[in-house]
Amino acid sequence: MVIGAGATGLEAAVALNRKGLEVTIVEVGKNLLPRALDPDMSEILEEHLRKKGIKILLDKKIERVDEKSAIIKGREIPNDIIIVSCGVRPNLRLAKMAGIETSEYGIATDERMETSMKDVYACGDCAQVSSLIDKRPFSAYLATPAYEQGKVAAINACGGEARYEGALATFVSLIGDLEIASVGFNKAQAESYGYEVVEGRVKGLTKPKWFPGGKEITSKIIADARTGKILGAQEMGEEGTGWRINIISLAIKAGFSLKDLSRVEFAYSPATSHIPDVLLTATDLALRKLKHAGGDK
Amino acid sequence: MVIGAGATGLEAAVALNRKGLEVTIVEVGKNLLPRALDPDMSEILEEHLRKKGIKILLDKKIERVDEKSAIIKGREIPNDIIIVSCGVRPNLRLAKMAGIETSEYGIATDERMETSMKDVYACGDCAQVSSLIDKRPFSAYLATPAYEQGKVAAINACGGEARYEGALATFVSLIGDLEIASVGFNKAQAESYGYEVVEGRVKGLTKPKWFPGGKEITSKIIADARTGKILGAQEMGEEGTGWRINIISLAIKAGFSLKDLSRVEFAYSPATSHIPDVLLTATDLALRKLKHAGGDK
Repeated sequence: MVIGAGATGLEAAVALNRKGLEVTIVEVGKNLLPRALDPDMSEILEEHLRKKGIKILLDKKIERVDEKSAIIKGREIPNDIIIVSCGVRPNLRLAKMAGIETSEYGIATDERMETSMKDVYACGDCAQVSSLIDKRPFSAYLATPAYEQGKVAAINACGGEARYEGALATFVSLIGDLEIASVGFNKAQAESYGYEVVEGRVKGLTKPKWFPGGKEITSKIIADARTGKILGAQEMGEEGTGWRINIISLAIKAGFSLKDLSRVEFAYSPATSHIPDVLLTATDLALRKLKHAGGDK
Repeated sequence: MVIGAGATGLEAAVALNRKGLEVTIVEVGKNLLPRALDPDMSEILEEHLRKKGIKILLDKKIERVDEKSAIIKGREIPNDIIIVSCGVRPNLRLAKMAGIETSEYGIATDERMETSMKDVYACGDCAQVSSLIDKRPFSAYLATPAYEQGKVAAINACGGEARYEGALATFVSLIGDLEIASVGFNKAQAESYGYEVVEGRVKGLTKPKWFPGGKEITSKIIADARTGKILGAQEMGEEGTGWRINIISLAIKAGFSLKDLSRVEFAYSPATSHIPDVLLTATDLALRKLKHAGGDK
């Protein structure tokens, strides 16, 4: 049994399944990878994992766990191995003891990655960061933001001057045969933050139908229905999802709207790509909905 | 013998080589793919093709050609098959007969893709376009700009309102086992247009060294040494070059400098990517040179 359907839990579940073990994933949220995916994208992954023989229990809370079993809704489920991978939380004990300001998202820092205590810097999974989209405080828990924060903290600690503009939580993981990538807010997050959202979701191929070797890929883009500004995206397929998400990461950083993105000139050759790419088709779909909603600025 | 080392010529050369034919490529320019690549990047491709047994003659003009041979510098080279693939030029006869304005780059159009004659539109390989970088007129001869121009022309012809912002010549081709991609100006072009340029070129792997399956990739980025603004890029490797070039295409559209690009948050997972990606390492290298040159705005 794997408790928690984040990237770590899912990667562990697939690895154990490959070794021939019977695996059940238990997730308290309503879908897999709840930080990254919306339920409609999670369904593709659920089907992929179920085909491998992995059992998935969603929206289920573990009440109690011991060495041999787990209790869910009063029912005892026997297990040989239980892997607990149900989230990350920064250990703030040292910072608190030192009198440094913290929040539910980690050690508070300014744009220079300096804490509330002069000359003391924080970066990485223990540091609270702000969202590059709307400055909202959050925790990124990912390598790339940590890497950039480390550079900024080090430059400032050494007497230089650098600022961290904010994180997007650009994410990619290989789960079974599917590359899953996401960036920014998913729909549920965006709506909980008060955004009215418009979305485009398209399934397509990475190469033209008539060219051998194309892979299926599903692309979903989410934008602010009032301004058309891109808020996030999710990609799922056998290859090439990370780079499509990097495109959206850059587009968000540039403050692009759906319309701006729809006009980016992508490289095309049937041996490597499709025209238009599924990411741009999803963008065009969201843009058409936006025009109906009257939000095309 | 293949005359002309553009994408069409090189793809034909590799296909004939695969069939077991002795192939010689003759190119009047100083390197392969002269519209896309600088000589330092071309060298990697030259080595790749020579290893396959393909002969390459650069900086060589064909003086005369008949059914059985070609004459280069007075020397007759016998051939069974001669493929002529030495460039594209738009046929402007119809436009000229109609009294429509043309230039050395094709049929002149405004941002609406309308020609000098009211209600007559031009798009695709026969249309002159302006560069998205600096509005310079040129010919793109590529599918993606043609696709976008077609949309713009059609919207306007149908009574709507759309504008084409300019082309970047975002290019990708699979030559042998190498994916070659480029965007914007190469160094020779940028210098001939009066830019003072700074460049970063880095060879790396698509995944961390310790993770199986990483492929070698070379990334080159070119920027304006006075402003740090990105002018172009070239990528060469077994996979993933097109998406890196798409990133640069978007960055140029957004008016990004090297510094802006160096801070984009890419998705990382050892199964799919490297941190920092070779594209960002090349960007950092160019950025350091720029700082030495005093151009970091």
